[in-house]
Amino acid sequence: MAEKSKEITGSLITIGDELLSGDVANGNSHFIAGALRAYGFRLASMLTVGDQPAVIRDALLEAMGRTQYVICTGGLGPTSDDRTAEAAAQALGRPLASNLPYEAFLRSHLAQRGIPWSDAIAKMALLPEGADKLGGHMAAAGFFVEHGGIPCYFLPGVPAEVCMFMAEQVLPDLCRRFPRRPAYRKRVLRVQDLPESQINERLKELEVADLGVEIGYLPQTAENWVTLSAVADDEQAAQDLIAGAERQVVRCVGRDAISGRDAETLEEIIGRLLRSRSAKLAVAESCTGGLLCALITSVSGASDYLDRAFVTYSNQAKADLLGVPEALLAEHGAVSEPVAAAMALGARDRAGSDLALAVTGVAGPTGGSPEKPVGTVFIACASRHGTVVTERHFTGNRRLIQEKSAHAALVLLWRQLTS
Amino acid sequence: MAEKSKEITGSLITIGDELLSGDVANGNSHFIAGALRAYGFRLASMLTVGDQPAVIRDALLEAMGRTQYVICTGGLGPTSDDRTAEAAAQALGRPLASNLPYEAFLRSHLAQRGIPWSDAIAKMALLPEGADKLGGHMAAAGFFVEHGGIPCYFLPGVPAEVCMFMAEQVLPDLCRRFPRRPAYRKRVLRVQDLPESQINERLKELEVADLGVEIGYLPQTAENWVTLSAVADDEQAAQDLIAGAERQVVRCVGRDAISGRDAETLEEIIGRLLRSRSAKLAVAESCTGGLLCALITSVSGASDYLDRAFVTYSNQAKADLLGVPEALLAEHGAVSEPVAAAMALGARDRAGSDLALAVTGVAGPTGGSPEKPVGTVFIACASRHGTVVTERHFTGNRRLIQEKSAHAALVLLWRQLTS
Repeated sequence: MAEKSKEITGSLITIGDELLSGDVANGNSHFIAGALRAYGFRLASMLTVGDQPAVIRDALLEAMGRTQYVICTGGLGPTSDDRTAEAAAQALGRPLASNLPYEAFLRSHLAQRGIPWSDAIAKMALLPEGADKLGGHMAAAGFFVEHGGIPCYFLPGVPAEVCMFMAEQVLPDLCRRFPRRPAYRKRVLRVQDLPESQINERLKELEVADLGVEIGYLPQTAENWVTLSAVADDEQAAQDLIAGAERQVVRCVGRDAISGRDAETLEEIIGRLLRSRSAKLAVAESCTGGLLCALITSVSGASDYLDRAFVTYSNQAKADLLGVPEALLAEHGAVSEPVAAAMALGARDRAGSDLALAVTGVAGPTGGSPEKPVGTVFIACASRHGTVVTERHFTGNRRLIQEKSAHAALVLLWRQLTS
Repeated sequence: MAEKSKEITGSLITIGDELLSGDVANGNSHFIAGALRAYGFRLASMLTVGDQPAVIRDALLEAMGRTQYVICTGGLGPTSDDRTAEAAAQALGRPLASNLPYEAFLRSHLAQRGIPWSDAIAKMALLPEGADKLGGHMAAAGFFVEHGGIPCYFLPGVPAEVCMFMAEQVLPDLCRRFPRRPAYRKRVLRVQDLPESQINERLKELEVADLGVEIGYLPQTAENWVTLSAVADDEQAAQDLIAGAERQVVRCVGRDAISGRDAETLEEIIGRLLRSRSAKLAVAESCTGGLLCALITSVSGASDYLDRAFVTYSNQAKADLLGVPEALLAEHGAVSEPVAAAMALGARDRAGSDLALAVTGVAGPTGGSPEKPVGTVFIACASRHGTVVTERHFTGNRRLIQEKSAHAALVLLWRQLTS
């Protein structure tokens, strides 16, 4: 067995007035935290500060004194409010000096593009003495410095660049420096049509402490995620813990409530099921206005099973495109079980498909009535076995009701395909 | 003129292991920062820490010593890893005690719902001595305490609850406590079809320092935002600064490149234009698979101008539903200028609408060819004045290409409606 490994804990500092003012969401923190975790590293804290060098300097000093590695993003650009290098130099007690390889690279990079050299660009190459440019082949600013044994990575704030530096520089370097660290594994189980409280109830019988994993709940807009996280001395042990816990959690929650794992979306699972049966699907939408079809066609290769869809917003469109009888619309209203069924049957018939999904409802904020309040939605699935219709009542604003309705239609189809 | 007002600066602490592990994005920080800014308050820092009471205590002590107000979210629930109240009690040097009004409220709240009282629920009512429950009419945990003149607000971590507490408790209380503070105004100008570098070029002639506002760029997936921010002694002065700067920025960027301001989305602007002309729109989509129509129908009242839409993924569907000649499809391929035009004409004709939009392209990742690589998209707009087709080349993954294509179709329609 491998030598017992210890958690490696670091600090993340994100820099920018635009983060403190709420103008920009801090996507970098979320991304960096998840990437570190996936490689078995921990963060002790994530701090966001503004562009003042003294504040950045103090944050760096505190982080270097308290944790085993430091990652810092933002404030490395050419403009006057980019002052992270200056702050780092203060924290390290070293002067700023032009990094000659980086300066040479920038000069040739700009010359090739016919862009004149400027003081602003020259400023980008000013790094704390002894710092190394990260990613010598990249024009984007980013440097590394080790101080008192603590590796400190300074990255730009542009999300795509952060992603590149993390993958190509920071994570490989951290892994080299800290080969002995616990292995971390995570699994997401995607639960459909089961509220969090009921999942919780079903998991009560599990002795979680005995599983050796952490179980978490992450409610999404229209489905619930159960997460399993395991930390162990090596990869295999972490995987085994996850596999064992997953079997028990799946048994308790019920296999028929779980559509997929990790990144497998419901629309991908449905696509795979349809393709494996060579079944074709048609879609007819009223209140979701194209959103259901957009979900289905977000999957590459959807043309294998989807050929056409109808957005029928008005009664006339429902009659024209789907052959919904006008008498039915007059008698029951467009938002009704019989009309949902007729839409699905009409779509299946007109498209010549094996299956058809239809959605009609009141997405709001207007259009509700005492009998059919905002959020009332009828969803139908037609197949050669007949037509199933469900009535649902969703809460939230227009967009949420549309999203929940489209997702519920996918759930209905998934149940038909798996039952 | 009002007495000179000073910036009021606070600290935000968000608590939760799930944030440090990257399992959950910190949407609360972004929301709270933006809400504070809108009311003229500043944040000095945003810190995220885990669930350990000692760490939370230290973070609270530092924040109380350094800034004028403190907001803290997370760790107030009934479970054993919710330890913020305990940490707050340590920081304040006060014992935990059951808050009697809150305990009574919880008891009656639970009794009404037939839920038995439990130790876990009792724990929620344990607050630092002297703390007040925030929002007496809410079951959700949340409390307030003043310490050494510093108001400290403790909120739960559930985003919807944070939103409610901020709007109903924290912001009104902060405004009462700090009536003399600078007024802050912000404006977003939504720029279409103009890269950031060109916007920058057009704004070069402005003497930004003379405008008295900060100008920022926020590139979005498919449009660019120019933001104007003004801080002044009173509302009127801030508004005047924004209005003056806006006139100059609009003149430089060009009125015809700006579709709307602040929260006005392109689909809302288009909806307003269509409604004001009593014009009807039809939509025919191939590679966007319903996404364009979903954007249009995300606007409440879209049924006033949209009646139906066609998702025609296959050649057969394009022929059946839109009457695209099969010879045209055979000669030029589905992704071509003539087919885009024929789709728009067919949609307009079949729907009997005034206008029609059509999109056909290669969303990828498969289906590209040397002549028509992934990202090639043709967009057509048909009206009684004729049919306009544009060819676009987008980069990114499948979802991004679909989103950019749908947005570009809206831009084409907007140009038709405003030219």
